[in-house]
Amino acid sequence: MPSPLWSYVTPGIPDEMFERLPGIPMSPREVRLLILSSLRLKDDSILWDIGAGTGTISVEAGLLCPKGQIVAIERDEDVANLIRRNCDRFGVSNVEVLEGSAPECLTELSQAPHRVCVEGGRSIKAILNEVWQRLQPRGRIVATAATLEGLYQVSESFAELQVRNIEVVQSAVNRLEKRGINQTFAAIDPIFVLSGEKLD
Amino acid sequence: MPSPLWSYVTPGIPDEMFERLPGIPMSPREVRLLILSSLRLKDDSILWDIGAGTGTISVEAGLLCPKGQIVAIERDEDVANLIRRNCDRFGVSNVEVLEGSAPECLTELSQAPHRVCVEGGRSIKAILNEVWQRLQPRGRIVATAATLEGLYQVSESFAELQVRNIEVVQSAVNRLEKRGINQTFAAIDPIFVLSGEKLD
Amino acid sequence: MPSPLWSYVTPGIPDEMFERLPGIPMSPREVRLLILSSLRLKDDSILWDIGAGTGTISVEAGLLCPKGQIVAIERDEDVANLIRRNCDRFGVSNVEVLEGSAPECLTELSQAPHRVCVEGGRSIKAILNEVWQRLQPRGRIVATAATLEGLYQVSESFAELQVRNIEVVQSAVNRLEKRGINQTFAAIDPIFVLSGEKLD
Amino acid sequence: MPSPLWSYVTPGIPDEMFERLPGIPMSPREVRLLILSSLRLKDDSILWDIGAGTGTISVEAGLLCPKGQIVAIERDEDVANLIRRNCDRFGVSNVEVLEGSAPECLTELSQAPHRVCVEGGRSIKAILNEVWQRLQPRGRIVATAATLEGLYQVSESFAELQVRNIEVVQSAVNRLEKRGINQTFAAIDPIFVLSGEKLD
Repeated sequence: MPSPLWSYVTPGIPDEMFERLPGIPMSPREVRLLILSSLRLKDDSILWDIGAGTGTISVEAGLLCPKGQIVAIERDEDVANLIRRNCDRFGVSNVEVLEGSAPECLTELSQAPHRVCVEGGRSIKAILNEVWQRLQPRGRIVATAATLEGLYQVSESFAELQVRNIEVVQSAVNRLEKRGINQTFAAIDPIFVLSGEKLD
Repeated sequence: MPSPLWSYVTPGIPDEMFERLPGIPMSPREVRLLILSSLRLKDDSILWDIGAGTGTISVEAGLLCPKGQIVAIERDEDVANLIRRNCDRFGVSNVEVLEGSAPECLTELSQAPHRVCVEGGRSIKAILNEVWQRLQPRGRIVATAATLEGLYQVSESFAELQVRNIEVVQSAVNRLEKRGINQTFAAIDPIFVLSGEKLD
Repeated sequence: MPSPLWSYVTPGIPDEMFERLPGIPMSPREVRLLILSSLRLKDDSILWDIGAGTGTISVEAGLLCPKGQIVAIERDEDVANLIRRNCDRFGVSNVEVLEGSAPECLTELSQAPHRVCVEGGRSIKAILNEVWQRLQPRGRIVATAATLEGLYQVSESFAELQVRNIEVVQSAVNRLEKRGINQTFAAIDPIFVLSGEKLD
Repeated sequence: MPSPLWSYVTPGIPDEMFERLPGIPMSPREVRLLILSSLRLKDDSILWDIGAGTGTISVEAGLLCPKGQIVAIERDEDVANLIRRNCDRFGVSNVEVLEGSAPECLTELSQAPHRVCVEGGRSIKAILNEVWQRLQPRGRIVATAATLEGLYQVSESFAELQVRNIEVVQSAVNRLEKRGINQTFAAIDPIFVLSGEKLD
């Protein structure tokens, strides 16, 4: 899907190209790369993006999967509109924004997903349980954790659900940022990316 | 370019899917993601991959750019054959392996590249100078550094060549690796990825 | 306690100054600094060092606490002797090595400790429970975790035992190592250091 | 030197125990540990702390070296007073604050130092040159760098001055910070700590 703003086949749109709202989380580019790679998208993947925040994963997945369908789930109306604006900005038309609270709102979705990305939500375990039931065979699930509690919950859920081929990566990237004439080493807060698949 | 082994639109082939030779360096998956993203590939990009090592960047770029042409430059014959075997393994047919020593051998290449990736080489500065002259306008250059000396040389060269929109990222990823019943935090040695573009 | 080999008031003895045995873990210097700092030793502290391994914490604590008493607990006889040799090497005479398996062997110790360091052991939770009972009021406990499971267990135990003022730090240090004429960035595997205190 | 606030023989005073001024840099505890360890202080060391900022290194060194003498060099009067207040707070009386601009003001100091810590300053190279001349034989020098340019300058200076046994460590620590009921992984910006010694 050729975008007026981002015409590349590789993911990793710079953070500053997205519209943002104060207080709304955004996966920084380097973390997004890990999430998208762990999703192992196909050009026709159906992806649920739960706790979509600024919508960066939805936008990148929309561009990477021109024949696919992405559903961004977000309960806050203002944030849902932010995702829509970011999709418009990049000319992405295969992202649907579902305003609602997961896991309850997921029943509104008729098509089972090939891929699920869980970046947040009030009750991670309930969300993971629900999406795991809905996930298609050979589907993949990716969840992020920024907190120790989140890491525990996702890790426990993955074990209970018998997610296969689990991989856990902790991203700890430093960027060199221009400050005056110098380039300062600035750390991006570390994020855990957990992923795995449903075998049959 | 649909591969029998890797049918995804996202990069990040697991390390263990590549054939390896002892002592030959390989960019681990997480570093590869940063390199490929910084290259900002198009589906018809011409890419020079200098110091290609195991050939992981060439393979992934070959898959991502079905209409593109990748040239992997490698002076050692055994390593050149390793790259060829890794391309065969993934059904990649748009990677040409040029056996030779950069920068000298680059004169054999008639087509100017859109993208250049420099992962090694005896004389980094001479290589960067040469490829910068050959790089097409609006082309992008990405170089990695695993050593302080490499970081200096690439950084100085980029400044001297007036590379634009330079970005420097230090990848410092930890993987959770199964050791017995436990998952141990294992660090991947940090790599600097420097990238930028040629404006005119 | 002036040592012939290490006459400094600051901790951080270089790794290569210790005698080592293949396969026996050693806290690298940078991690040791975090452990020792989190212990907040006094010059007369009684410290139990459980899962002492190479004995680096015991040696450094012995030097820092000339009026203190350190007990290194280690079940393997060869490793216990290694600790003794490392103490001899640094002229440390206030470290007693107790050969035994924690938590059972801890009953042999009559004096309640001011500080406890738990770097390993078969049953972390049982060890933490036992040492917590024995720890003196206003005492401090420090535990390390190299695995996700260890991080869980220590974190859960600390919560159950109502350890106060818990601090968790993940050490992720890179060293520049000489390889030929270059200095390569080499990552030290990350370790979590959890610490806290007993209020009354 | 027993302090009313910090009665421990191990360094690593919590950051929040220091008085701070907005905009004035402070080495976070984990970085301070590396700096102090790399200094290898003795109880009677003469230490120059250049670019002392909040004064945390001076305070900790003052406590660790009861027979020593620490000179904190700081050009800004308000910051100099901040250092003095932090010394008072911890009952440290062996720290002298010299208001002035290094390297010029160093001529006012009659005693040659055993240890030098350079955490900042307008002209790092000139400072390193000057202190190297003044440093006593078998003395140690430690410098930090938060920027790529600083890393270059210190590294080049160390090579030119033929500093011996150079060690370079990049601190990249994550802290778990309480945010609501969760503990979030927060990265401390990475700092390079370079150290070495003068042989004769």
